[in-house]
Amino acid sequence: MAVYTDVTDEALFAFLAQYDLGAVLSFKGIAEGVENSNFLLHCEAGRFILTLYEKRVNPDDLPFFLGLMEHLAEHDLSCPLPVKRRDGTALGALAGRPAAIITFLDGVSVRKPDARHCAETGRALAQMHLAGHGFGLSRPNALSLEHWPALFEASRARADDVAEGLGLEIECELEALQRLWPCDLPPGVIHADLFPDNVFFIGPKLSGLIDFYFACNDALAYDLAICLNAWCFEPDGAFNATKGRALLQGYQSLRPLEVEERDALPVLARGAAMRFLLTRLYDWLNVPPGALVKPKNPLEYLDKLRFHQTIDHAGEYGLDI
Amino acid sequence: MAVYTDVTDEALFAFLAQYDLGAVLSFKGIAEGVENSNFLLHCEAGRFILTLYEKRVNPDDLPFFLGLMEHLAEHDLSCPLPVKRRDGTALGALAGRPAAIITFLDGVSVRKPDARHCAETGRALAQMHLAGHGFGLSRPNALSLEHWPALFEASRARADDVAEGLGLEIECELEALQRLWPCDLPPGVIHADLFPDNVFFIGPKLSGLIDFYFACNDALAYDLAICLNAWCFEPDGAFNATKGRALLQGYQSLRPLEVEERDALPVLARGAAMRFLLTRLYDWLNVPPGALVKPKNPLEYLDKLRFHQTIDHAGEYGLDI
Repeated sequence: MAVYTDVTDEALFAFLAQYDLGAVLSFKGIAEGVENSNFLLHCEAGRFILTLYEKRVNPDDLPFFLGLMEHLAEHDLSCPLPVKRRDGTALGALAGRPAAIITFLDGVSVRKPDARHCAETGRALAQMHLAGHGFGLSRPNALSLEHWPALFEASRARADDVAEGLGLEIECELEALQRLWPCDLPPGVIHADLFPDNVFFIGPKLSGLIDFYFACNDALAYDLAICLNAWCFEPDGAFNATKGRALLQGYQSLRPLEVEERDALPVLARGAAMRFLLTRLYDWLNVPPGALVKPKNPLEYLDKLRFHQTIDHAGEYGLDI
Repeated sequence: MAVYTDVTDEALFAFLAQYDLGAVLSFKGIAEGVENSNFLLHCEAGRFILTLYEKRVNPDDLPFFLGLMEHLAEHDLSCPLPVKRRDGTALGALAGRPAAIITFLDGVSVRKPDARHCAETGRALAQMHLAGHGFGLSRPNALSLEHWPALFEASRARADDVAEGLGLEIECELEALQRLWPCDLPPGVIHADLFPDNVFFIGPKLSGLIDFYFACNDALAYDLAICLNAWCFEPDGAFNATKGRALLQGYQSLRPLEVEERDALPVLARGAAMRFLLTRLYDWLNVPPGALVKPKNPLEYLDKLRFHQTIDHAGEYGLDI
C-alpha cells in the first residue's frame, strides 16, 4: 500500500490549474502501488489517477513510462492514458515530486487467478508486445542478467540468515545463468512486472493492464517467463500446468513463440525467478524504519527457481510442442 | 490514513452477493478514516464506501451510527446513506469484521478553511442538530466530562514527559470543569468530531458531512464548541475571530443559541479542548508498534485550552450579543 506524500487541497488546485479537467469532485489517497503515491481524482471531466513519483523511480525514466502508456493506448491496448496539460506535456510537479495524471481504468485484480484469468493475461501480454512495436523510446532493463551479481552482492553477507546455504545456492545459479542465458531472442518492450495486482478484470473478462513502471526493452519471452512465475503457481508452491497451458495458449493465440523462445523458456523462467528472488531478498533485509509495506518472502521465489531447474523442455509448462 | 484489513476479491464478491449493486467495476483501499478500514467501491449501481469496523469501534454502537446517517439523510442533511441488503439490514460482516456499505459523497476537505468555509460548516452543524430531532436511538457520550478523569489517569504518570507541569495543569482544569460545567443545556444528537477532514466542499460550497462514528447525545452547544476549536484557530495558535464570527453566524442562521448556551460557550470550549487534549495525550503516549498513523500533537489543544481560560464571554469569539 502507498500514499507516502501528503497533498493539500491548495497544492492540488494549483496543480490542476494547468489542466482542463473542470472542478474537483473528490480526491482520495489510495492504497495501490508500492513505489509511488497514488490518488483517485474525480473531476467534472471524469475519473483519473494522480501519481506522485517517489524516490525509487528515476525521473529520467518518466518520459519512457508515460510515452509508452500513450503509445500502447493508441494501439488499442486497454491501459491508462496520460492526460496532457494545456502546454501539451504530461509530466508536472506537485508537492516537490514529479507528478502525472492518467485515466482511471475500471476493474478489480484477482487474488487467486484461475485458468481463464491466466489465458486472458497471456493474450493481453501478447497484445502489449505487438502494440509496443514502433514505440520510439527505449529503456534498458535495469534488473537484467548483468545486474544480478551486483544486486546479490548487496545481500550476500546476510543471505544465509534468511535460509541456510542460500548464498552459495544463488552464487551457483548465477554462474549457470550467465552460461546458459540466450542472447538472440526477439526483443521488444516488456511489462516486466505483470503480476495479478497489475491486471484488472470485470467479472471474468480482462479490462486492462496497469503499472508500467518497470517496463523496458528486453526479450519478449522473458516477460512471459515472469508471468509463468507470477500466475501459475499455487499458494502451496506447486506449479499448475493447467494454468501454464492457459497462459501460453492465450499468449500464442496472438503471438506464436519462435522455436528459440520455446527452447529458452525454462532458463528464462529460472532467470525470472532469480530476478524476484534477489529484489525480494534485498527488500527483506533492508526494511526501512516506519515502512508501510511488509516485504514479500523471498523464499517463495527460491522454490520457483528450484522447480524450473528440474524442467527439461517447455512442454512441461503445458506448451504444445 | 487507514486500510488495516485486507479484503480479497473472493470475500468481496461473496459479501456483495447479499446486495443488489450489480457488477463490481473497481475496488480500492483508501487512505481515509483513522479508526476503520475504508474502500472505494464502484459498482454498476454507483459509487460507494465500504467500511470494515476495526476494534476501536464498539459493534453495539453500529446500529446507532448507521441509523443516524439514515435518519439525517432522510431529513435532507447531505451525508452518506447506508445501503440496505436484500434482507433489509445495513450491517453485515466481511473479513471477520462488522462491515457496511454507504453511499459515496462527492467533495474535498479543506486543509486551511477560510471564513466562508466556517460559515458553511456552522450552518451545516445547525442543520444536523435540527435534523437529529426525532431520531429514535440514543448513545451516551463516551468521552464526556464524567469520563475525563479516568482518561487522564491512563496518561497521568507520563504527562510531564510531554510538557513540564502538564499533569498538574490538567488536574486543576479538570477540577474547575467539574465545578463550572453546565448541566441543563438543550440536548440532542451531536457529531462530536466535526473537524475539517469530515466536511466536504465542491468549490466554495459545502457538499456534505461524513464520519458519524463519534456521534452521541449531548448538549448541542458543546458540538459548536468543538467546531470553534477545530475550525477557528490559525496554525500558529492564534484564534481567528473572523472565522469564529462566521461559524457562529452560520450556525445561528438556522438555530439561534439560547442565552444559557451563549453564556456557557467559554466553558464548553474549555471542555472541548480538554477532551481532545486527553485523547491526543493518550494516543501520543501509546503509539502501537507498526502504527500507520502518526499521532497528533496534544499540546495544540493545551494552547487552545489556555486561550479559552482567558475568555470572559462569548462575544470574544465573535458572537453578536
